[in-house]
Amino acid sequence: MPFKQFGIIALFAFVSLTGTSVAQAEATDPLPSWNDGASKTAIISFVDKVTEQGGPGFVPEPERIATFDNDGTLWTEQPLYFQGLFALDQIRLQAPQHPEWKTTEPFKSVLAGDTEAVMASGMEGLMKILGVSHTNMTAEEFSASVKTWLASSEHPTKKRPYNELVYQPMLELLDYLRASGFKTFIVSGGGIDFMRVFAEEAYGIPPEQVIGSTLDAKFEMRDGIPTIVKTGDLLLNDDKVGKPVGIYRHIGRRPIFAAGNSDGDLQMLQYTTIARGTEDTLPRFGMIVHHTDADREWAYDRESHIGQLDKGIGEAKQRNWTLVDMKADWKTVYPGE
Amino acid sequence: MPFKQFGIIALFAFVSLTGTSVAQAEATDPLPSWNDGASKTAIISFVDKVTEQGGPGFVPEPERIATFDNDGTLWTEQPLYFQGLFALDQIRLQAPQHPEWKTTEPFKSVLAGDTEAVMASGMEGLMKILGVSHTNMTAEEFSASVKTWLASSEHPTKKRPYNELVYQPMLELLDYLRASGFKTFIVSGGGIDFMRVFAEEAYGIPPEQVIGSTLDAKFEMRDGIPTIVKTGDLLLNDDKVGKPVGIYRHIGRRPIFAAGNSDGDLQMLQYTTIARGTEDTLPRFGMIVHHTDADREWAYDRESHIGQLDKGIGEAKQRNWTLVDMKADWKTVYPGE
Repeated sequence: MPFKQFGIIALFAFVSLTGTSVAQAEATDPLPSWNDGASKTAIISFVDKVTEQGGPGFVPEPERIATFDNDGTLWTEQPLYFQGLFALDQIRLQAPQHPEWKTTEPFKSVLAGDTEAVMASGMEGLMKILGVSHTNMTAEEFSASVKTWLASSEHPTKKRPYNELVYQPMLELLDYLRASGFKTFIVSGGGIDFMRVFAEEAYGIPPEQVIGSTLDAKFEMRDGIPTIVKTGDLLLNDDKVGKPVGIYRHIGRRPIFAAGNSDGDLQMLQYTTIARGTEDTLPRFGMIVHHTDADREWAYDRESHIGQLDKGIGEAKQRNWTLVDMKADWKTVYPGE
Repeated sequence: MPFKQFGIIALFAFVSLTGTSVAQAEATDPLPSWNDGASKTAIISFVDKVTEQGGPGFVPEPERIATFDNDGTLWTEQPLYFQGLFALDQIRLQAPQHPEWKTTEPFKSVLAGDTEAVMASGMEGLMKILGVSHTNMTAEEFSASVKTWLASSEHPTKKRPYNELVYQPMLELLDYLRASGFKTFIVSGGGIDFMRVFAEEAYGIPPEQVIGSTLDAKFEMRDGIPTIVKTGDLLLNDDKVGKPVGIYRHIGRRPIFAAGNSDGDLQMLQYTTIARGTEDTLPRFGMIVHHTDADREWAYDRESHIGQLDKGIGEAKQRNWTLVDMKADWKTVYPGE
């Protein structure tokens, strides 16, 4: 990972220093898994505009901040958010030490595989499941449990490890933006500590550029070892109105590029793209990945319980956001297909 | 700023690519404002060790995380934390619109210039002052108030703008670490939004790498403009045990280098430098700036109300942290002297 990252930075710096190979670099397609069409053209035009030294849309590198939702934008989120599947698996794993769960909801239903009953337990049930799988453990214990789960589980229908179900076209987009001087961030409703375990390897996004829903933590010395312990208070629900707040808290400036796939991303897209006034003239880019591909992935939008996209479809048109049609715009969905 | 940053990155990448000019680069003193001695030697030895490809102490770039306290470590904190002086000035500025402050504490004492009475108002008084100067305004309004203050105020005794009272040797250290592949962060008890206004220009540290005490914020649409409003709840007291928590929350991995100047930095230094076990073999560096220079800056430690350094002196010895003697180790204190 370090060498790969270094390679990209070094190449970019070298090209910029010599100032000759730019045309050559552009001749190579930066987005080979994207079909030619309006979406791909819009992305490339935007990047060309913000990187053109002296051009009217030039954006200095420190302002080139790009934020990406994770579930349904960078990797699959069906039939259930993968972090939800992780939490359910943790309950099953810990069940032998908790005989009382056989008769206590929501654990009883989790162990019986009765997803509907689990859902019916509502927010209270969900918090109990999260409590068991995400809190009252050290930071290292939590990371290790996610790592073990990723290495030993596979998706129920795709039969591949979860961290292989990332979108190849989005990986190329992340690489392309970084090679163009952007700093790429995840801004997701998913758990910040959960995503940080795999984001660097899967997406090239280091932990410090991952923002997500956040449970509190505390510091203590344990047998002389400085230790972070995960506790239960929700400090940020990084969804809907929480996304611009997460961006403000962690990044401290507005992105110029944001990508999402659901109505949970609306406020992030608004915050990123709506000009604050006549002096706010930086080029801005909003993108929504529309799940239209029932054969290769899933097709869902207005009626879905996972990743519902309703208002976003109309707003994309109104605000000139790029609505990516997964079926039409993407040559491949997953890496190595 | 963008060009300066780019210059450093590009130079480093170029040197590494060609692989020839390293000796030449090292021949130039990276820390010209540091006197030769144990502190300077310790810093350079550490950086040489972690950057030596194939060496026993080599640390991959993504793990080269360095965290710095701000007040008293990167800039002066006497006679009062500068953010405190800012808050008091905001009270004076807003007083004409608040005739009731003439008879209400702690505002009455602030307006009378009675610092002792302000201090006597305790945490309750402080929170009222912070409430007026730091909350119930948009993110943009707050930034603008800090910018205006920095541009129009000067230090009561040094008679220079506050953001010029940064330590030249520490600026060189930040540059040196970044040129050696480190990512530099601020981790301070000061307010995150306050520091972000000047950290990029003063230190080359972008907003997304500034961590500090954090008041909550909310998102709302105001006349069609997506707006962040600062509210009053304290989400992180980024001091003492709060510092490792802030690091975990914002960076998501342990630094290998930390610098502070007071007992408020102890837990950050412990978290950074104490090995977690026999497999935790990365080289680690702790630094405490000891204010020993009453002529050029200030001399204070165990008895000071600001930046108290008591336990840290003994612990530095015990844990092999570098205790920087400002008077002996620094050729110059402030830039341009």
